[in-house]
Amino acid sequence: MQQLSVRHLLGIKDITPQDIQLIFETADQFKEVLNRPIKKVPSLRDVTIANVFFENSTRTRLSFELAEKRLSADVINFSASGSSVKKGETLLDTVNNILAMKVDMIVMRHSSPGAPHFLSRKINANIVNAGDGTHEHPTQALLDSFSIRERLGEVGGKKIAIIGDITHSRVALSNIFALQKQGAEVAVCGPPTLLPKHIGELGVKVFWNVREALQWCDVANVLRIQLERQTGKLFPSLREYALYFGINKKMLDELNKEIVLMHPGPINRGVELTSDAADSHHSVILDQVENGVAIRMAVLYLLASKG
Amino acid sequence: MQQLSVRHLLGIKDITPQDIQLIFETADQFKEVLNRPIKKVPSLRDVTIANVFFENSTRTRLSFELAEKRLSADVINFSASGSSVKKGETLLDTVNNILAMKVDMIVMRHSSPGAPHFLSRKINANIVNAGDGTHEHPTQALLDSFSIRERLGEVGGKKIAIIGDITHSRVALSNIFALQKQGAEVAVCGPPTLLPKHIGELGVKVFWNVREALQWCDVANVLRIQLERQTGKLFPSLREYALYFGINKKMLDELNKEIVLMHPGPINRGVELTSDAADSHHSVILDQVENGVAIRMAVLYLLASKG
Amino acid sequence: MQQLSVRHLLGIKDITPQDIQLIFETADQFKEVLNRPIKKVPSLRDVTIANVFFENSTRTRLSFELAEKRLSADVINFSASGSSVKKGETLLDTVNNILAMKVDMIVMRHSSPGAPHFLSRKINANIVNAGDGTHEHPTQALLDSFSIRERLGEVGGKKIAIIGDITHSRVALSNIFALQKQGAEVAVCGPPTLLPKHIGELGVKVFWNVREALQWCDVANVLRIQLERQTGKLFPSLREYALYFGINKKMLDELNKEIVLMHPGPINRGVELTSDAADSHHSVILDQVENGVAIRMAVLYLLASKG
Repeated sequence: MQQLSVRHLLGIKDITPQDIQLIFETADQFKEVLNRPIKKVPSLRDVTIANVFFENSTRTRLSFELAEKRLSADVINFSASGSSVKKGETLLDTVNNILAMKVDMIVMRHSSPGAPHFLSRKINANIVNAGDGTHEHPTQALLDSFSIRERLGEVGGKKIAIIGDITHSRVALSNIFALQKQGAEVAVCGPPTLLPKHIGELGVKVFWNVREALQWCDVANVLRIQLERQTGKLFPSLREYALYFGINKKMLDELNKEIVLMHPGPINRGVELTSDAADSHHSVILDQVENGVAIRMAVLYLLASKG
Repeated sequence: MQQLSVRHLLGIKDITPQDIQLIFETADQFKEVLNRPIKKVPSLRDVTIANVFFENSTRTRLSFELAEKRLSADVINFSASGSSVKKGETLLDTVNNILAMKVDMIVMRHSSPGAPHFLSRKINANIVNAGDGTHEHPTQALLDSFSIRERLGEVGGKKIAIIGDITHSRVALSNIFALQKQGAEVAVCGPPTLLPKHIGELGVKVFWNVREALQWCDVANVLRIQLERQTGKLFPSLREYALYFGINKKMLDELNKEIVLMHPGPINRGVELTSDAADSHHSVILDQVENGVAIRMAVLYLLASKG
Repeated sequence: MQQLSVRHLLGIKDITPQDIQLIFETADQFKEVLNRPIKKVPSLRDVTIANVFFENSTRTRLSFELAEKRLSADVINFSASGSSVKKGETLLDTVNNILAMKVDMIVMRHSSPGAPHFLSRKINANIVNAGDGTHEHPTQALLDSFSIRERLGEVGGKKIAIIGDITHSRVALSNIFALQKQGAEVAVCGPPTLLPKHIGELGVKVFWNVREALQWCDVANVLRIQLERQTGKLFPSLREYALYFGINKKMLDELNKEIVLMHPGPINRGVELTSDAADSHHSVILDQVENGVAIRMAVLYLLASKG
């Protein structure tokens, strides 16, 4: 069997283009399984996976939990609220305790960039980063690319514009790495206050005008305005954002070309996307959600075989 | 196999007397299973059920979860706290996301009357309403009638008094529909401030005096005073309520007849019921809880076969 | 098969030395299982266990949940937040409701000393006390003794010093009972404000000086300073506590003898233990966590066979 080059999925930065292809080919098979009446496989029957979420999450945790249950793993959920974390325990102690209970894999979300990388140097279990602060969210980037590949045949050579709050988004960074490793061209678009200062160093085009970005791209990946991550006052108001960067169906139709519209959810309807755009034939938003389970099954399955 | 006339269980209003009988006969079989040492059946082995609770609940969620696990379904729990709902996502987006993950059935509690009905027009999965605001709570009404049938042989022809806070109770409305569809006579009893203005239109008798209601009925279904739903000041104080509408064992014994005492729980002991009444031989309160699991197994099992 | 002398595990006070040995010998076998690639056994396949936690807990709940899942039991989690408890339901009503749903065993944590004992006189299911206020925490004491036995061959004849906040600790009381029943000598050590007034009646030595306690003992079981249980002002400040009772590696190395260092977790690093002590070769802290799962599997397995 082919193997991943890594024991953990910490970020897209650390994996190879071949890893990405292997994950996609494995996810193809699991996606077939998910469309059968019997959606369960016995692959991870003797594996215990802990979902350790130090930050709230719905869709990511549910998606991982479904992926794990469909692989027949035993699943333990741990969330920071109501936990020893509140009693002042260190991250390493918390995770070491979970591991001493003989857990095989850890899916972890944490507010600190690098938290899963720190842990991976200390412990034996396989770690999957389910989001570390504003840093990486690798399974999201993989499912985004997988959804592009599904709609357009391949990712290489395509033009993808990532639109919105780039600074506060772990999805943006992981997507840039993933798309570039697959040979796509990447642009970002947003108000100056929501673009990182050193964005140029990442080798991406920058658009200040959303219509120009849409005209240029094959795929628009529209990010959520992370209201809950904003501080300070530089940010345009929601009304201003919707006015200058919001996308509606008329804008998409007027492009006179096929365009793929993506969003990692949850959507702020009327802010970054109007409902008629989000629900249009351009949108693959619900495909992204469906593909998320298949991608996560593939990642867990491939890491488990790395012991 | 006999089938339900509906694809969803949204409310008792939408189902037929034949549906109710079919659910009862199926629940009879599951109740037998629950009294065997091995309480599990493989019926829903390949079905994934999401329990989506936008309002807190203990007993209803636990009862559904046990029913699902004993049918061997895969179970995913979602509660509004710690979820995307707090991030401003719409109900439809939340549920569509869960469905895109290939969930087959949704058990849903929501504070807005009609929320599950709205969803049922949009999505493919089978929906079970586990309470929508002050509107319906159909599985509670079914388990109440099932418990009456168990104690008295049948529901048709019996006199049932629903006593307490009728206005704020989804249990009352579902019970009135269920009992009338089975040919029972129904009365309500409570202080004027806790009876809906248009109660007469529902075809039920009204008692203002709890002793008269007890004298009239075969079954007293005593509702919980929903402290957490009260607003405003019209309500009698708890002390006044207990004085005028509270039921004790002496009142039941003095009736000189058999009477069945029900309560959907959780009981405010000393308010709507004294402990000696709640724990007396008249009471079928714990039978109601036990029957709840059998009824919910029956509903899930029958809906699953409707695709 | 050998049997326990009790139907419930309410406290160490109620069980015999033979019970303790039986639990240890059973845990030996489960510990072997936990170190196999396949960590699951079908022993409790048809048993439903409810984890009923009226107080927050991470490690204890996770440890029980893993033990239950590895015994193939069906697991239902109930926590007080978001439950009927908030609606004013009595403890007995809450638990009776859970039992009416045909739950076989209850693992229970409650803030009131004696709560599980009260319940055990009213209900049929097997109860495991997972901590009742400042009273007992029997599985913790069993896993502590099991870890001593593992490192030192036996518990009988050994000298164990329990160091720290004895007054607010259920771990201390259960440990004193367990160690004495196995023929060990027990001492306690801590500031006067954190030792119970009548500690002498328990037949333990008392040390006011942590260096003297360390010199005397074979095993130092260092308790967590229960910040969340403190009230009033008698308590030394954390800085004072760390200065006079905190243990570092240098102190341990200077003893010029083998010593076993234990801590029930979560550790306040820099308060009761420095990091170099907690992570030293003296420490069996992570073994305690691992043994916790094996001990809990043994307790659940043995109680289940008592019907």
